[in-house]
Amino acid sequence: MLHDFKPSDDGLDKARRKAEINRLREKLAAQQQSVMAAKLPVIVLVEGWDCAGKGHLINELISEMDPRFYRVAVYKRVPENEERYPFLRKFFEPLPENGKFLFMDTGWMEDCVYKYLRREITAEEYERRVDACNIFERQLRDNGYIVVKLFLHISREEQLSRIAELRENIDTEWRVTGDDLWQHKEYKAFRRAYGEFMEKTSVCGEWHVLDAGNRKKRLLAGFQAITQAIDSALQNGRYVGRAGKSDFPLLGGPSLRDADLTRSVTPEEYKEELKRLQEKLAALHNKIYRKRIPVVICYEGWDAAGKGGNIRRLAYPLDPRGFDVIPIASPTPDELARHYLWRFWTRLPRSGHVTIFDRSWYGRVMVERIEGYCGENDWKRAYGEINEFEKALVDYGTIVLKFWIHIDPETQLERFELRQNTPEKQWKITDEDWRNRDKWPLYETAVEEMLQKTSTVYAPWHIIESVDKKYARIRVLRIVTDTLEQAVNEHITRGVKKECARPKKNRD
Amino acid sequence: MLHDFKPSDDGLDKARRKAEINRLREKLAAQQQSVMAAKLPVIVLVEGWDCAGKGHLINELISEMDPRFYRVAVYKRVPENEERYPFLRKFFEPLPENGKFLFMDTGWMEDCVYKYLRREITAEEYERRVDACNIFERQLRDNGYIVVKLFLHISREEQLSRIAELRENIDTEWRVTGDDLWQHKEYKAFRRAYGEFMEKTSVCGEWHVLDAGNRKKRLLAGFQAITQAIDSALQNGRYVGRAGKSDFPLLGGPSLRDADLTRSVTPEEYKEELKRLQEKLAALHNKIYRKRIPVVICYEGWDAAGKGGNIRRLAYPLDPRGFDVIPIASPTPDELARHYLWRFWTRLPRSGHVTIFDRSWYGRVMVERIEGYCGENDWKRAYGEINEFEKALVDYGTIVLKFWIHIDPETQLERFELRQNTPEKQWKITDEDWRNRDKWPLYETAVEEMLQKTSTVYAPWHIIESVDKKYARIRVLRIVTDTLEQAVNEHITRGVKKECARPKKNRD
Repeated sequence: MLHDFKPSDDGLDKARRKAEINRLREKLAAQQQSVMAAKLPVIVLVEGWDCAGKGHLINELISEMDPRFYRVAVYKRVPENEERYPFLRKFFEPLPENGKFLFMDTGWMEDCVYKYLRREITAEEYERRVDACNIFERQLRDNGYIVVKLFLHISREEQLSRIAELRENIDTEWRVTGDDLWQHKEYKAFRRAYGEFMEKTSVCGEWHVLDAGNRKKRLLAGFQAITQAIDSALQNGRYVGRAGKSDFPLLGGPSLRDADLTRSVTPEEYKEELKRLQEKLAALHNKIYRKRIPVVICYEGWDAAGKGGNIRRLAYPLDPRGFDVIPIASPTPDELARHYLWRFWTRLPRSGHVTIFDRSWYGRVMVERIEGYCGENDWKRAYGEINEFEKALVDYGTIVLKFWIHIDPETQLERFELRQNTPEKQWKITDEDWRNRDKWPLYETAVEEMLQKTSTVYAPWHIIESVDKKYARIRVLRIVTDTLEQAVNEHITRGVKKECARPKKNRD
Repeated sequence: MLHDFKPSDDGLDKARRKAEINRLREKLAAQQQSVMAAKLPVIVLVEGWDCAGKGHLINELISEMDPRFYRVAVYKRVPENEERYPFLRKFFEPLPENGKFLFMDTGWMEDCVYKYLRREITAEEYERRVDACNIFERQLRDNGYIVVKLFLHISREEQLSRIAELRENIDTEWRVTGDDLWQHKEYKAFRRAYGEFMEKTSVCGEWHVLDAGNRKKRLLAGFQAITQAIDSALQNGRYVGRAGKSDFPLLGGPSLRDADLTRSVTPEEYKEELKRLQEKLAALHNKIYRKRIPVVICYEGWDAAGKGGNIRRLAYPLDPRGFDVIPIASPTPDELARHYLWRFWTRLPRSGHVTIFDRSWYGRVMVERIEGYCGENDWKRAYGEINEFEKALVDYGTIVLKFWIHIDPETQLERFELRQNTPEKQWKITDEDWRNRDKWPLYETAVEEMLQKTSTVYAPWHIIESVDKKYARIRVLRIVTDTLEQAVNEHITRGVKKECARPKKNRD
């Protein structure tokens, strides 16, 4: 692939190339407004060899753009803490809003290839990450992102001469890092790996290999790739992907019909079990801290089913330094203008921590579906996207637990009326709750479909009967403690080996 | 102070203490709603000895609270990157929104005392930070925050026995860090330093020293301090501070009247100087990168004065991996619900980076003053708060440059009309621009007052005549390059010594 790379001749003399560059520079600046008007988000991924001029290229690309509408993300040195999250998280974080641009100075290619060649990840983990990159790119495309992928290519000789040039000057010398020198030494291995990576990730969008030996040619080719991609997107309108075929290991999920809502505990049982399980959970929290296992707990359920009280009993024994409760309400404008999983990707627990989501990404296939906040293709596609999201978490070593807190409509009515009639509880009941209640059958259908389509072997749903709230609390605590207990006995954080090491000096 | 600490007896027997704790637990949960209704932001700072039970205490305090309305921030181990920002930044970051709670597991006390005793900062820098903490607390109070400061005290013997207990169990053993053991060894030095810190920072709010040897007493005292502070704030309403007396080293600032708007450059001069200065700036950017000098450049000016084009010429020679342009528009609801400097504190450049603010914190004393978006006390107080903010940046070693891009009303009118009449420029002109234009005299008064009151020796204003936009660009480039040149020749990053070291392996 790369070893027989021949730069395509753009057939221009110097003056004409310069004129063409200036024309496209203006064009890109003008496209910014059309992109804004069409609310299209654009990602320009700039990968390539060390010293190939990625920074320079980006700077030329943005030179006439309005800085209010783009952002540059740099990945060459990722904060150490990122190792404590699934590797894709850092690429979700800077996703542009609709109508804006993101330029990335290296990204998921460099991250995968570099760690693989450095043997920081195994070959098996590398393959898993390449698959994850394809899924990531497809999700971006299906959710309307324009992704332009550039690879800046230089020969080994050219790289050497650039390294030498940088090292001649005291002010630029420090830019040549040990990593750069090592890449130069391993040029052949990198060439093979870059080439293979591009072959494997051309599924959702082609790679543009730019002849980076010549600064002007490189720039022209970059402008061409970007402006053409935008032209085409502006013509075709925002892309909306359809649901792909599902090949997830589904359990055929639980059904609400099978729930036995008469289940209950006696006050004595409750008191005793609550104490016992909370103490057990406190001890387990120490263990998962130590073993650096991340835990995601997702609560969904009917209004007034008792989620809040349930979460409080679960959180009480946890060390507040090691858990977060994230309440999920309607998305803010910021969140609405991005991939709908963005606000969840960016709030994942670090390894060893617990995050409890009070409502979650399943809003996509419930409220957003029912209220029409997203299109039919969007929520139909979401089952697969959510399974992929949870798979990425589990592949990283995360424990994913999902609870549907369940009651019947009569119980809900009683609780609504109690709230209505108790002054200090009135704030808990709103008109929206009553409106949602009227849509109970619609929600029931959506919930059943969700349980069927997203109960995977790696992240199954648990229906928690909660007419007796105390029963529900004990049941959740029991599932959580059982799962964590099993995990600390068996768990190996996959992929990133050093994650399991004991912290040396400081606690966190 | 601490060495003769006598726990005050709460005069309760076990059963009554337990009942009182439960009463206050419920009370705090109820206060959450009043605090929400009154839109008061609450910060509970929990400082104290290692192993004194800070985490436990916080967990008990929040046990009945609604997790949607509080957050816990943990500082024991701060990400390394924080060393690359002024030290207060990390405490601004989690500031709660109006109506919400923030619990801090250690904070500015531990950060100062620990670094000082570890000799990571000099005695002089320590004193500067203590002053900065007082300023921070006053700014919080003046901007309506309720700050409750708790210190958890245990004796040396008690600490030893807790360390021993943790080390007995394999699952808790790792919680005892080298830092804890070192603190135990240096107990006396810490006791003196903690005591002195509390004496020096009792200006804007008292410290509550809690007898943490007894878990229940500690908890009761914590609940008491918090619920009383909230009761008092609910009674008195949101506090609005008045402007204090100014003792900043003011320059008596430039005046718009002294600007000579006929200044211009010839096309040849422009071309030549632009190239020369941009090349010089590119080289200087490498140097400040290497010396880890952070740079903040703030642009203010009349609508249509040419800020955008000016910024683009300044940014063009910069390495995009090392600078950001932050456009400042009306605050989002998120931002509006916090200290008005929050959105600037959280967007500062890391050491070695450049951040260009396209409009800035000076909105407080211009648009917010004129449109009445904040009260009179708020904008009058802001001159001092802004001087303090910039002082904190400069104390850290930041270069702060402030440009007022200046034109006369006639030039503005010409440019507005040109925009109106040129299809591809129409998006740049809005009704708001015309409305602002009508308020020219009001703005002029506000600008003059701003120039007078915030031109400090450490962060002076520069008026940039921009009737000839090319002249303005050259002038800004000249000031920036001159300032950076001087800085790289003289600069010592104060306080944090290791900041100046050369990066070892990776560039960033």
